Amino acid sequence: MTTYKAACMPGDGIGPEIIAEGRKVLDSAGEKFGFDIDWTDYDTGAERYLKTGELISEDELKELSKFSTIYFGSIGDDRVKPGILEKGILLALRFYFDQYVNLRPIKLLKGVSTPLANKKPSDIDFVVVRENTEDFYVGIGSRVKSGKQRDELSVLRDLYNVKFGIDVETDADELAYQIGVVSRQGSKRVMEYAFDLSMTRDKKLTSVDKANVLTDVYGLWREVFEETKINYPAVSTDYNFVDAITMWFVKNPEWFDVVVTPNMFGDIITDLGAMIQGGLGLAPGGNINPDGTSMFEPIHGSAPKYKGQNVANPLATIWAGSLLLDTLGEKEAAAAVVSSIEHSIEKGAVTRDMGGSMGTNEIGEWIAKDILNK
Amino acid sequence: MTTYKAACMPGDGIGPEIIAEGRKVLDSAGEKFGFDIDWTDYDTGAERYLKTGELISEDELKELSKFSTIYFGSIGDDRVKPGILEKGILLALRFYFDQYVNLRPIKLLKGVSTPLANKKPSDIDFVVVRENTEDFYVGIGSRVKSGKQRDELSVLRDLYNVKFGIDVETDADELAYQIGVVSRQGSKRVMEYAFDLSMTRDKKLTSVDKANVLTDVYGLWREVFEETKINYPAVSTDYNFVDAITMWFVKNPEWFDVVVTPNMFGDIITDLGAMIQGGLGLAPGGNINPDGTSMFEPIHGSAPKYKGQNVANPLATIWAGSLLLDTLGEKEAAAAVVSSIEHSIEKGAVTRDMGGSMGTNEIGEWIAKDILNK
Ligand SMILES: CC(C)[C@H](C(=O)O)[C@@H](O)C(=O)O
Ligand SMILES: CC(C)[C@H](C(=O)O)[C@@H](O)C(=O)O
Repeated sequence: MTTYKAACMPGDGIGPEIIAEGRKVLDSAGEKFGFDIDWTDYDTGAERYLKTGELISEDELKELSKFSTIYFGSIGDDRVKPGILEKGILLALRFYFDQYVNLRPIKLLKGVSTPLANKKPSDIDFVVVRENTEDFYVGIGSRVKSGKQRDELSVLRDLYNVKFGIDVETDADELAYQIGVVSRQGSKRVMEYAFDLSMTRDKKLTSVDKANVLTDVYGLWREVFEETKINYPAVSTDYNFVDAITMWFVKNPEWFDVVVTPNMFGDIITDLGAMIQGGLGLAPGGNINPDGTSMFEPIHGSAPKYKGQNVANPLATIWAGSLLLDTLGEKEAAAAVVSSIEHSIEKGAVTRDMGGSMGTNEIGEWIAKDILNK
Repeated sequence: MTTYKAACMPGDGIGPEIIAEGRKVLDSAGEKFGFDIDWTDYDTGAERYLKTGELISEDELKELSKFSTIYFGSIGDDRVKPGILEKGILLALRFYFDQYVNLRPIKLLKGVSTPLANKKPSDIDFVVVRENTEDFYVGIGSRVKSGKQRDELSVLRDLYNVKFGIDVETDADELAYQIGVVSRQGSKRVMEYAFDLSMTRDKKLTSVDKANVLTDVYGLWREVFEETKINYPAVSTDYNFVDAITMWFVKNPEWFDVVVTPNMFGDIITDLGAMIQGGLGLAPGGNINPDGTSMFEPIHGSAPKYKGQNVANPLATIWAGSLLLDTLGEKEAAAAVVSSIEHSIEKGAVTRDMGGSMGTNEIGEWIAKDILNK
């Protein structure tokens, strides 16, 4: 029997509750389909950070690379300033393991209600491939405060011969800047992934950018897309500016099959995508390095106010578990998980946010049993 | 009788057709409410650029500052690379005149259908105040190609001690970067505008950012918001991350009253807003400098494929004309324009995209007459 070593990072807020359900389901899929998952827990998150000041250590990162996969709950805590946990843990993992594909299926499951009028499951079924290691997520930027940073600003000013509207010498603490970086290789690899994926689906790929304003980074992005598509003559392609695509997600989601997007725009449009597929409670994501360690998570946050109340919806996490299995090569088990999620919805075995009456802890059990009974 | 000197820039594609309708309506409002508009046309746009290479001249900009207001159609042409007209004309005007407020009402008019299920006009009625002169719209960035730019990149690399994933010396042409700048003053003035506006409405203001990832620029943005709100104790405030707000626009638009947002996120969420209020055909915008020259436009583009076909919906432009009048102080006339727009919709006097059968040129006439008959 195959045994997969999996790292588990439940995290903050509702994280531990939803991850527990996900594990029940994955263990049950293993029982059914003949593999075993050997879980190791990590306590990364707000509690540890508040106690020790540590986010994630270099040693842990090295250790983690020995696992076949990582299952991630959620992070975020009102006692910690925005950005610290996100950048120090979640983004640190995505970057360290070079998980350059953020895979986010947008699919309205049968029985789930969407806020869009007149749209049915067959209208909302596409996948967003979000670049996950570049763009404005590289973390380069500065608040211009001290003498050193004032010098940096002067360098930039001289470099670009730009008037900042303020006096750099005297008002320098009044300004912040942020730098995004897009590389040819970084764009190409994620686009190739998206083209390959679209070859297994409807052969239709939409690229997102804002090449008419952020001409430097997204001009390059668009150029690489033009070059890459030559190698995929069977795939029909188009562009959407990021502002426009938010309209079409709402008006004509049936237009889309695979969407490839730079990192930050991907963050925005996949939340919108999550909503049209029924809400964050139903939106899974995979952070994938096809040649390395991948990580799976619900795309929602830690929802601190629901912590410990047994009301959180674990379906996004369970669905992320299906993506995890799929990436391990357990295709049949992965499909069984999604089919049992659909079955649970059909039977009304859902949490309150979906109109049901079950607790978080009952959902995983229900789905785990359903898989065994198949 | 007051005479306002107004500059008019019809632009490309459907621009001339929709602007013509807008002018009919504004002239008629003048007739009704006792003022006169003296129009001067400017031929900025693709035709002129393709013929002469010129976008907008310094002399023209100086001339334009003598007008009370600018009425702008739309720009964009398939024969011109993305970014050239947008940056060289539209953004040039916004920046030159320091039109730091981009005002975009999101309001579902009576009789208009929204793609959202179960939402009625009273649910969708808010205003987005988009910062309009900073952020990633400052146009600072570079494709790293030549020796000079390679040096710039090295400077950045040394400055930030950042590993770019590529060899700067040999692979430097494989990379692009883009810099966004946010200043304290620039944030403060647009936030004050938004707070003042919310005092005239429901006293509820939502600030948008992504302070958990773009910590430098949006960390400053959030800090300034915290400081500014102290002066408006009557206004209740909250934050939304940009990804999250796209969900709530779709799920709970009734939550919002005034939304203040950095430039790029404002671009994205106002297109989404346009769609929930019935589509781009119905979305007006004002580029406002409260102490200078303002400019009004539909937020849609030039739709080249509908050019000259008399099918474009001029309501966004006409509504933008109402914002123009409002900013000139002609409040009664401004209100009359919106009320006649609503009347035309109620009577089915609309273009095909809204289920009617009228041509572009009939709409302006209908509304112009309606105003006179009030
Ligand atoms: C928590 C945050 C850093 C993260 C992101 O911006 O990528 C989240 O919004 C997501 O989409 O996974
Ligand atoms: C045309 C483009 C430059 C512009 C923008 O990005 O601001 C448009 O999308 C808008 O929203 O007015």
